[in-house]
Amino acid sequence: MLFSNKLKALREDNDLTQKELAKILHITRTTLSNYETAYRTPSIYLVISIATYFNVSTDYLLGRTDIPAPYPIKHK
Amino acid sequence: MLFSNKLKALREDNDLTQKELAKILHITRTTLSNYETAYRTPSIYLVISIATYFNVSTDYLLGRTDIPAPYPIKHK
Repeated sequence: MLFSNKLKALREDNDLTQKELAKILHITRTTLSNYETAYRTPSIYLVISIATYFNVSTDYLLGRTDIPAPYPIKHK
Repeated sequence: MLFSNKLKALREDNDLTQKELAKILHITRTTLSNYETAYRTPSIYLVISIATYFNVSTDYLLGRTDIPAPYPIKHK
């Protein structure tokens, strides 16, 4: 599944409107819509923010795995 | 560790020059140098290409985990 589809699915699974998620990510609703339709691609920093907010790995968000679980974040 | 440092460390650990890795990634040496010095950030597509080439997760490349191992790529 592509990033655009993953993003939309995560948003809908978490019962968020585009307006609500855009506010959380500090972007406009139009920008979010552009990401969900694959019209634009986000920066790596926004990908990190989205993965952190939804508690998934960036590999999942970027379509490299179908397993959403995030890694252990850091070694101690 | 930041993306820029991870990228440089992976390149050096694999005994590649900037010129060699740039050729592999189909970018110029200057562009690669800009990524390694954090002067610019790559697109999410290039991050995926780099992670695939070095067989690491994007979470590792993006500094979200210190564990380099990639995920199982896909469920069957």
